[in-house]
Amino acid sequence: MNSFGSLFRVSIYGESHGEGVGILIDGCPPGVKFSEEDMLEDLARRKAGGAGTTKRIESDYPKIMSGVCNGYTTGAPINIFFNNENTRSKDYSLFRRMPRPGHSDFVAEHKYSGYNDIRGGGHFSGRLTLGLVAAGVLAKRVVGDLQGGGIEVQGRLVEAGGVDVREYTGEQMELYMERIQQEGDSIGGVIEFTARNMPIGLGDPFFGSLESVMSQMIFSIPAVKGIEFGAGFEGCKLRGSQHNDRIMDREGHTASNNNGGVNGGISNGNDVVFRVGIKPTSSIFVPQETYNFEEKKMDELQIKGRHDSCIARRAVVVVENAAAIVLADLMLRARGINKNIFK
Amino acid sequence: MNSFGSLFRVSIYGESHGEGVGILIDGCPPGVKFSEEDMLEDLARRKAGGAGTTKRIESDYPKIMSGVCNGYTTGAPINIFFNNENTRSKDYSLFRRMPRPGHSDFVAEHKYSGYNDIRGGGHFSGRLTLGLVAAGVLAKRVVGDLQGGGIEVQGRLVEAGGVDVREYTGEQMELYMERIQQEGDSIGGVIEFTARNMPIGLGDPFFGSLESVMSQMIFSIPAVKGIEFGAGFEGCKLRGSQHNDRIMDREGHTASNNNGGVNGGISNGNDVVFRVGIKPTSSIFVPQETYNFEEKKMDELQIKGRHDSCIARRAVVVVENAAAIVLADLMLRARGINKNIFK
Amino acid sequence: MNSFGSLFRVSIYGESHGEGVGILIDGCPPGVKFSEEDMLEDLARRKAGGAGTTKRIESDYPKIMSGVCNGYTTGAPINIFFNNENTRSKDYSLFRRMPRPGHSDFVAEHKYSGYNDIRGGGHFSGRLTLGLVAAGVLAKRVVGDLQGGGIEVQGRLVEAGGVDVREYTGEQMELYMERIQQEGDSIGGVIEFTARNMPIGLGDPFFGSLESVMSQMIFSIPAVKGIEFGAGFEGCKLRGSQHNDRIMDREGHTASNNNGGVNGGISNGNDVVFRVGIKPTSSIFVPQETYNFEEKKMDELQIKGRHDSCIARRAVVVVENAAAIVLADLMLRARGINKNIFK
Amino acid sequence: MNSFGSLFRVSIYGESHGEGVGILIDGCPPGVKFSEEDMLEDLARRKAGGAGTTKRIESDYPKIMSGVCNGYTTGAPINIFFNNENTRSKDYSLFRRMPRPGHSDFVAEHKYSGYNDIRGGGHFSGRLTLGLVAAGVLAKRVVGDLQGGGIEVQGRLVEAGGVDVREYTGEQMELYMERIQQEGDSIGGVIEFTARNMPIGLGDPFFGSLESVMSQMIFSIPAVKGIEFGAGFEGCKLRGSQHNDRIMDREGHTASNNNGGVNGGISNGNDVVFRVGIKPTSSIFVPQETYNFEEKKMDELQIKGRHDSCIARRAVVVVENAAAIVLADLMLRARGINKNIFK
Repeated sequence: MNSFGSLFRVSIYGESHGEGVGILIDGCPPGVKFSEEDMLEDLARRKAGGAGTTKRIESDYPKIMSGVCNGYTTGAPINIFFNNENTRSKDYSLFRRMPRPGHSDFVAEHKYSGYNDIRGGGHFSGRLTLGLVAAGVLAKRVVGDLQGGGIEVQGRLVEAGGVDVREYTGEQMELYMERIQQEGDSIGGVIEFTARNMPIGLGDPFFGSLESVMSQMIFSIPAVKGIEFGAGFEGCKLRGSQHNDRIMDREGHTASNNNGGVNGGISNGNDVVFRVGIKPTSSIFVPQETYNFEEKKMDELQIKGRHDSCIARRAVVVVENAAAIVLADLMLRARGINKNIFK
Repeated sequence: MNSFGSLFRVSIYGESHGEGVGILIDGCPPGVKFSEEDMLEDLARRKAGGAGTTKRIESDYPKIMSGVCNGYTTGAPINIFFNNENTRSKDYSLFRRMPRPGHSDFVAEHKYSGYNDIRGGGHFSGRLTLGLVAAGVLAKRVVGDLQGGGIEVQGRLVEAGGVDVREYTGEQMELYMERIQQEGDSIGGVIEFTARNMPIGLGDPFFGSLESVMSQMIFSIPAVKGIEFGAGFEGCKLRGSQHNDRIMDREGHTASNNNGGVNGGISNGNDVVFRVGIKPTSSIFVPQETYNFEEKKMDELQIKGRHDSCIARRAVVVVENAAAIVLADLMLRARGINKNIFK
Repeated sequence: MNSFGSLFRVSIYGESHGEGVGILIDGCPPGVKFSEEDMLEDLARRKAGGAGTTKRIESDYPKIMSGVCNGYTTGAPINIFFNNENTRSKDYSLFRRMPRPGHSDFVAEHKYSGYNDIRGGGHFSGRLTLGLVAAGVLAKRVVGDLQGGGIEVQGRLVEAGGVDVREYTGEQMELYMERIQQEGDSIGGVIEFTARNMPIGLGDPFFGSLESVMSQMIFSIPAVKGIEFGAGFEGCKLRGSQHNDRIMDREGHTASNNNGGVNGGISNGNDVVFRVGIKPTSSIFVPQETYNFEEKKMDELQIKGRHDSCIARRAVVVVENAAAIVLADLMLRARGINKNIFK
Repeated sequence: MNSFGSLFRVSIYGESHGEGVGILIDGCPPGVKFSEEDMLEDLARRKAGGAGTTKRIESDYPKIMSGVCNGYTTGAPINIFFNNENTRSKDYSLFRRMPRPGHSDFVAEHKYSGYNDIRGGGHFSGRLTLGLVAAGVLAKRVVGDLQGGGIEVQGRLVEAGGVDVREYTGEQMELYMERIQQEGDSIGGVIEFTARNMPIGLGDPFFGSLESVMSQMIFSIPAVKGIEFGAGFEGCKLRGSQHNDRIMDREGHTASNNNGGVNGGISNGNDVVFRVGIKPTSSIFVPQETYNFEEKKMDELQIKGRHDSCIARRAVVVVENAAAIVLADLMLRARGINKNIFK
């Protein structure tokens, strides 16, 4: 279950403080132009600091280990690896004794009978999302391979800590984040995803519905706690006469988009729109109570080190690229089963 | 992609106005007591009318076609079939010319090059969820097979048409529904799911996370437009210091349950809680505008027949049982990989 | 694991003496002409008696339960069901006490903790292959959907009881079979499969190689004990200079076909050729020794009823059609991943 | 389709002359003792030269990139990588113009529209089997985790170039091989696999039969052209009364083992035995005819470099370890579905 997809398949692996993290991509069409440099822009968007950060980020530099030759995908599995650097040899045994609230410490200890790698979150680390960003760069090119220009995807942060940040300038955002960081606390956020220039016909009824496979993918991103398509939960308060999207022309364009571009699990040609709820990072510097398994009592835990105050910011490109992976897989599936589906 | 699961696998099939609908279940442990009668209670809950409806519903009577012998599952695939009765030979060609807003009519026509069975919604019909309810009855028994009593699942309607209905009496609910029906319109709702007596360790990191596979399943239920776990979208407005669930004892019980019983994609032993947004039924009697593909212009559409005014009511047991299917699969997976995971 | 395939997927179910047997087909392209009558010819070939048998075989009449409308596949899952008739209420408990040598009796008892349906072989019955034949009829049409005429598949019996029967007339064959039957014994055989007009490019390197997925499918047919491609085991005695197939023209036609039309796991455009070894039916009327679990000693078992003396004859069409299912799936996969693969 | 298995899953990747080759293993139980050194013995058996070769083989040294911590598997995906060294920058464009007979050159060019990495065979190289050997070392430990001692697997070369080599001394074998090599030609062979101390119940009826999934795996090994279980093709010449294996005791031990330890697709507790036919290596130094795509005529091809004269020898440990991977997956599946299956 470290794999996702039926034709364009991705498998992730790695640990935060081990050798590195990576992703293995199977079923990518041959002949897609692709290089390590092509990933740098999106990887930079995931980097702490966001805009203004240098593109040359040594520790997140992707290494293509297989499946690309002379600058093009070969059709063979593509392995992309990120070497871990500067991992400090800290003592993590504290978190076995006193599992961090909101973290995977406690469940991992049970599920893996205590053999899990706990250093830096191990396999549960957000660092694993580097692979999703990398594979998403490739997926974006695959979904661009349709007559009429191809699909364009975009994620953006619309809410942070309960505040609508759509009109925040970069400076305002930085000030906001700094304040949270100084308090040693963290905030969550909401990310909105949009796919434009969608073909009609991606997704299958029921278990392979666009919403089903998209949500499976999106919930695999750490800290995601909710997803809603189109008008979402607010739309569930409407009457049918308000919610139904009137079809306006022969291409199926609708007057409203309460269904988020999906009917019956299948893309209807309008923009695919969904929102993702990201919980506040559980790693905070505020002292917290948790159970001390050694002393068998509640105890105060003080986490040290560097952490994100708002992981939602960095998750924007992860959501965007992870969604592109899903669309690529659905596109290949649809073309395989019905050769006439795309013009 | 009509299949779901890795060990306890379900595949659905059928059409609203064809021979019938059904579900095929693979990987069910042998020796589970199971009969057609065992499904009647949950099937009755799905029936229009809800409480007070007779358990003997002729048209929704399940027929076990394979995999059960002498009242017990055999270990072979289990096929459960529901015969279609009283399907009226209405002319559905109207909906090819004038696709219903919010329906699958338009996308199905494109995806299947016009060969889709459009009668009564065909394969997209909510009638397909009969199979999910049936398989869920079996899944509930499978997840009950754990020392300490087994998992107990429950769905309930918490919101209908934007109104909190948790304290509504049956009578108040009926009055509410009748009013909507008389207006020829429909309302959506929100369903809350709870699983109690959860073991620690169900779900895998990333693509196999409990939230990932649960949401894949839940979005396969027609009309679902959103899902959120624990504190969900509201929780994303909190600070980390507020959202983190303090661990209170050696069993991992937490003071709050903002994470909905899941950390790092894995059940933490607390109740698994999620909410599902169901959009208002798109079939309404209020006249609607849509595109007329024959006359190549916008036109008014008037739908006739009988439809649900609030499909969310009937979806409660569908969500509950579909979720049980997911938990059964995760339980078998976990036991297969780590023989020591459950006490 | 009752399912096979990645896009064109089949799942089988049923028991010999239960309600019936069937197959569920997912991922079939829409718009394929298909009816119950279309299956009768191949089903008749599977029927005991072979050539000269009426096409109208009451007990093996297929019923399309879903996925076909107005004579064409709709794109939705296709369920084909065969009702069981004339199943005699014999006492099968004997085979729990004294498992038949060469049968599944003993292993099924253990694997399913005694809950398996043992009547007539239950889920292990050769009757389950009806579904493979039915789905193969559809698969043949799918693989016929290629420019240049499409793939043609053919199975034939080349050896029976160690005798080369390629030049046997129908009459000679009947005499041969009758003799074996009178002795109360059974014989095995070898079936040769050929696929003509193959496109280049079906199959993937390694786990998805044409030979890998073909053999997975073929070994799912009861009584199969071996498979070899092209020159097979005999070819393994050759020198490389003898075995290598010289390429003769730009279409890749080769002078010999020792590789059976497959290089590197991928079809090379030459005929795909393989041979399948079918063991002699284990059900025989000759008295046999087996362990008596009740009396805890070796004992003599005498099986009664009607059985095939040479199941290999009836397996010819099963192999042919099962192979077509594989080719259909590989064709859809190849088209999905590389849109330029077929001219 | 670069993946195999349902719980214990392996995915392979890499190219002969690229960065390296590797394998990704998912679903391995936590707590299995495992290190790089543990793989050296089996990797040495795969090495040209066989016995007498130093265990420290620089170029085939495995690097565990994830999933192992403090000497034990953690439960997270395990990535094992083999760096490529000493790959000479030879000009392989010759093989695009003149595809080697018996090689993947021609099919890869078509399937991947000319984008395939052809250097050293690229992704089709036998070097990819390093990963299978590595994962097999781990799988052997997993299948050893059963009460009563666990499964023991063994492969051995029984035939080479049509000659029975079971009684050859190491010296005789070397002389034999040298002679073939001097002639610039190659020979094939037959490998026999045996699994001892088998539990009853591995494998499922039909598509998941032990023979089905085993053959899928074995045919993914380059150069395999046939597989037969137990008495195999020879057994298909027998009468049922000769072929049926008499059950002798309550553990299901049989007097003969014509079924190769499998009935109805499920292990019966006797040794699992199968034979694998390996074709002669297609790379030979004898001049060969093939089509010259540039000059559009038949032409003589002279291959240079170092090649194996009998790849079957080196494939012994590949077959053995690949088979162990299959058994590990079947064991976890069986335990997941039926908790009582193993004592």
